[in-house]
Amino acid sequence: MNPNLGRQRVVVENVRPQVDAGRFAVKRALGDRIVVEADSFADGHDIMRCNFLLRHESQPQWTESPMQPQGNDLWRSEFLADQLGRYEYSVEAWIDHFHTWRYGLRKKHEAGQDVSVELLIGAELVSAAHRRVTQIGKRNLFAEDAKYLAAAAKQLEEPGKQPADAIQLALSDELLARMDRFPDRQFATRHPTLAITVDPLRARFSAWYEFFPRSTATRRGEHGTFKDCLSRLDYVQQLGFDVVYLPPIHPVGEAFRKGKNNATSARTDDVGSPWAIGGVAGGHREILPELGTLADFRSLVEAARTRDISLGIDIAFQCSPDHPYVKQHPNWFRARPDGSIQYAENPPKKYQDIFPFDFETDDWQALWNELTEVVLFWARQGVRVFRVDNPHTKPFDFWEFLIGNVKRNFPETIFLSEAFTRPKIMYRLGKLGFTQSYSYFTWRTLKAEFIEYFTELTQTPVRETFRPNLWPNTPDILPEYLHSGSPPVFSMRLLLAATLGANYGIYGPAYELCEHLPREHKSEEYLDSEKYQLRHWDLNSPRSIAPLITKVNQIRRQQPALQNDWNLDFHPTDNDQLLCYSKSTDDKSNIVVMVVNLDGHQEQHGFITLPLDQWGIDHSRPFEIEDLLTGAHYQWQGPREYVELHPDQQPGHIFRIRG
Amino acid sequence: MNPNLGRQRVVVENVRPQVDAGRFAVKRALGDRIVVEADSFADGHDIMRCNFLLRHESQPQWTESPMQPQGNDLWRSEFLADQLGRYEYSVEAWIDHFHTWRYGLRKKHEAGQDVSVELLIGAELVSAAHRRVTQIGKRNLFAEDAKYLAAAAKQLEEPGKQPADAIQLALSDELLARMDRFPDRQFATRHPTLAITVDPLRARFSAWYEFFPRSTATRRGEHGTFKDCLSRLDYVQQLGFDVVYLPPIHPVGEAFRKGKNNATSARTDDVGSPWAIGGVAGGHREILPELGTLADFRSLVEAARTRDISLGIDIAFQCSPDHPYVKQHPNWFRARPDGSIQYAENPPKKYQDIFPFDFETDDWQALWNELTEVVLFWARQGVRVFRVDNPHTKPFDFWEFLIGNVKRNFPETIFLSEAFTRPKIMYRLGKLGFTQSYSYFTWRTLKAEFIEYFTELTQTPVRETFRPNLWPNTPDILPEYLHSGSPPVFSMRLLLAATLGANYGIYGPAYELCEHLPREHKSEEYLDSEKYQLRHWDLNSPRSIAPLITKVNQIRRQQPALQNDWNLDFHPTDNDQLLCYSKSTDDKSNIVVMVVNLDGHQEQHGFITLPLDQWGIDHSRPFEIEDLLTGAHYQWQGPREYVELHPDQQPGHIFRIRG
Repeated sequence: MNPNLGRQRVVVENVRPQVDAGRFAVKRALGDRIVVEADSFADGHDIMRCNFLLRHESQPQWTESPMQPQGNDLWRSEFLADQLGRYEYSVEAWIDHFHTWRYGLRKKHEAGQDVSVELLIGAELVSAAHRRVTQIGKRNLFAEDAKYLAAAAKQLEEPGKQPADAIQLALSDELLARMDRFPDRQFATRHPTLAITVDPLRARFSAWYEFFPRSTATRRGEHGTFKDCLSRLDYVQQLGFDVVYLPPIHPVGEAFRKGKNNATSARTDDVGSPWAIGGVAGGHREILPELGTLADFRSLVEAARTRDISLGIDIAFQCSPDHPYVKQHPNWFRARPDGSIQYAENPPKKYQDIFPFDFETDDWQALWNELTEVVLFWARQGVRVFRVDNPHTKPFDFWEFLIGNVKRNFPETIFLSEAFTRPKIMYRLGKLGFTQSYSYFTWRTLKAEFIEYFTELTQTPVRETFRPNLWPNTPDILPEYLHSGSPPVFSMRLLLAATLGANYGIYGPAYELCEHLPREHKSEEYLDSEKYQLRHWDLNSPRSIAPLITKVNQIRRQQPALQNDWNLDFHPTDNDQLLCYSKSTDDKSNIVVMVVNLDGHQEQHGFITLPLDQWGIDHSRPFEIEDLLTGAHYQWQGPREYVELHPDQQPGHIFRIRG
Repeated sequence: MNPNLGRQRVVVENVRPQVDAGRFAVKRALGDRIVVEADSFADGHDIMRCNFLLRHESQPQWTESPMQPQGNDLWRSEFLADQLGRYEYSVEAWIDHFHTWRYGLRKKHEAGQDVSVELLIGAELVSAAHRRVTQIGKRNLFAEDAKYLAAAAKQLEEPGKQPADAIQLALSDELLARMDRFPDRQFATRHPTLAITVDPLRARFSAWYEFFPRSTATRRGEHGTFKDCLSRLDYVQQLGFDVVYLPPIHPVGEAFRKGKNNATSARTDDVGSPWAIGGVAGGHREILPELGTLADFRSLVEAARTRDISLGIDIAFQCSPDHPYVKQHPNWFRARPDGSIQYAENPPKKYQDIFPFDFETDDWQALWNELTEVVLFWARQGVRVFRVDNPHTKPFDFWEFLIGNVKRNFPETIFLSEAFTRPKIMYRLGKLGFTQSYSYFTWRTLKAEFIEYFTELTQTPVRETFRPNLWPNTPDILPEYLHSGSPPVFSMRLLLAATLGANYGIYGPAYELCEHLPREHKSEEYLDSEKYQLRHWDLNSPRSIAPLITKVNQIRRQQPALQNDWNLDFHPTDNDQLLCYSKSTDDKSNIVVMVVNLDGHQEQHGFITLPLDQWGIDHSRPFEIEDLLTGAHYQWQGPREYVELHPDQQPGHIFRIRG
């Protein structure tokens, strides 16, 4: 048994933030002030000390600082996350016999008791500190301390005729300071190490725009190229988005290629689905020749960067039958007894254009390494955003391995999980390392649903590892409420996404152009979906809601309160078609209140009730508000206010409260 | 790296009950039905299975049973805690390829697809199961299974001219049952083992009575003996208590002995404090000669048992200067530089009659072992209840060691923690193994305080390891609100203790006789405290509230709802001096509603509001209630009822609802 085990009298527990007993790192963004708290206490009444230990993954050494006692055995520290990547932290606490002794000495001395034996005890404590100093080895550095402590020990041991001087020394700040530099920590208790991943600011606050590069050609019917994408970048920049992501850019398979509208057989001029990856031109590290060259792609990444846009690509780990892996690594796929390779299926449906990897293969380590290398390859081309297709159909631990490896090399990388699956699976992917995740926002339409879901996402421990990204549409999902094609409905959903979530995105230009026809009645599939064919978009259509999007993105950039998910607060309304919520900065210098008409078709009005007390606003005095969407100014007074919204005028309000 | 690591595709998380990631065992009582839940899921869409694993500490083998899926990746099992002691449990889950295959085969077959290749895949799965059977070794036991599976594999592989028969076999219940007996669990995921401590029923439901054996003599002024205690046991039994505990029964030190009312010097006839343990007659394993012999003590324990009373003793790990340990083990105490031993102190106060153990001694392992042996010694004398004095002044890990050792040998043992200290320390002691703990009930007087504190104790994770025991007084604590000596106040506090908590206790006869004089104004110390002198009690005093106590204890035994802490529910009242709460059994067959007048001096009345919907009671129909304290019957209707309480008549109501 560890001979010190029974003498570690201090408990350190409930160190937070913490997820699953430290199994996973919590997530924060660059520039965040991170508060760490711990419960720490010892038996008895001795005085204890508690240090916060921190190191960035790039540092071998721990930095220590005293935690501040908050009362009730709660200790707190705070630090600035000023480096990307992984921080490790811990808490170490110990009984400080010198402090305990000093406290008792003062009390006894004040009570006029004889303290001669106490001084001898102090001499032993100071001598022990002196021995620790001399054993450190860096004797020259601490020579002065050693000298001081030796002399102090001697004076306490032999106060001679000046016991008052010895007592003064014993209680002096200087002796305390010197002793505090060399505490006796042999029986200290240290909490297991915890971790925080610090992501770039864009992980916490971002506006995404997805488009198909092949649909960017100037002339209708032509296959778009990366060069064509340059002007689309300008357009997206004007709209105010800061992340663009492209569906897979790799060669598309020929075997079992899908035709327009997912037809099982393709015509010769059909371009196929970009997710059927791999063909004669290569696999996951190659580029579809029609889009351009690797150099073209790097130019596009660079062009995005100069526009302060992060260009992301789609990572879809599956293969068309023509993928080079199929021949090079047959053991990465499951063989059927007839010698064929197991294609994807959802019995009785067959997806013969897709071979899934067999992650139960004996050769799984090579498979993991290769797929990680694929992502590292694109990271080396400058890509820092990866939208991962269907991560929930690959083993969880694989993602932890891949993301961990990539982020160790490129800590600014953002991984967006495309997982519209069961909640526990989505949350697990967040814990494993995905920076952001798609969310159920896409299907939430009722006031009670929004409140319940976004309270769960922003006010429970889920938020430590799961950052939702709100998409009103994707190439796979045209929600039924958009089938009407009504621009007010598209505007309303855009407003909700952009203000409920600090991270949101749209699949455009389909979204802003109010593309709305489903392939079949009530289907969520787009008719003439870009997934299977080229499209040509009229960006100047009068139906476009681009002006609203531009305005909303501007507001998001100007209002810090909208750049955070955790400060979301819902407020009562007396009309279930009116959703009212606010976001505010911690110091309440920025308070933004949204009121959204969930109806989208009819005028709605009612009363909202605002938490003026929380905001420090006097009920008896008028306060200024501005509707940031219209620029209109009003004066309100008291917590209860009347609101009226006409869908044909505006989808909702974004009020800035001017306190 | 474990070559299977990457292939363990199933996640098992959030298995509950669970405390601090399994660092501590949760607590339950004998006869409890224990529900275990887990979140478990895998990537993709394969069918998985999830087993619950359980073993009692007395069994080497795990018992397995399938967990029931509840939807949303939640799995559940339930078992009866029918043995005292420690259970270990875990959850193991895996992907079942046979189930997945069978599901797909059925779908394809129903869709009329050719399944010949699927049958070959099935043949491989069945062959693999056959290999597993033959490798188990107990071949004779499973010979029939082996034969069946070999034949089935062959038929699936070579269906010949009867593919329909092969399909029928493939989908048969019998093949499924046989396959389920030998699943492929090589890539199974197993959750770390968790633990539950099953305590005797009395750990969950008990009424304690503390008395000083030395104050039981028939004749005033004489030192009571264990023989005198026998008639006191009859009295306590009549009152309806089922645990009696005695302050320390060991020889009392002479050095620095305290006199009456804690005088620093004792007179020759002063009996001293029983907590100053150790004298010429011995230490923690010996008995104070004035009380009797070890044989007398064993007789007393046995006499209690025949009355269905558990007799407990006080464990106070500290020594008088006369304790044999002081000479035998000087290294278990801290030496001062002048050669003296460090006495207890709270500077500038000195407690020179008490030497604390130095748990930081090099010899801590011997100290731990000896103190554990002390408890085991008394356990061998038949003691199964230990009230531990000041556990928070000894290292936490020491208690885990001691309690663990004792309960391994005597799993029915109950340890009550005497820790009126900071809440996190009290909760830690509960986690470490204390069966019950004193609580802040003693100082809670306001309605809001009761609701806040008891909600924390009974409705948060605290309850998994912390069982409060509610004491309106102790020999150390005469709370200020009792200083009036008013029997209605003593009755009110008794009623609260006995119905808010399933575990409660009093220090008597002081309590039922309304002993109320403090040593000084506003002090919590009793005047003429039994801690320092003999007392003679007039059990027949007309001021005694023994009749009420007897009634309340009867009611507690008759109403199962009062025997549990977790079912406590507070209800609104429109008068802050009226506290209303209920307890009910899970099946609502027993619903008991308390209304207590917190004033204690003045009549109070008001309306209470009951959750009739929760209890399945129709708002529009009258229902019967009975006041169990008075036997009066009423009819109520609807959730809102008027209540009026006169302290001189009754301290509160205990209503039984008759649905």
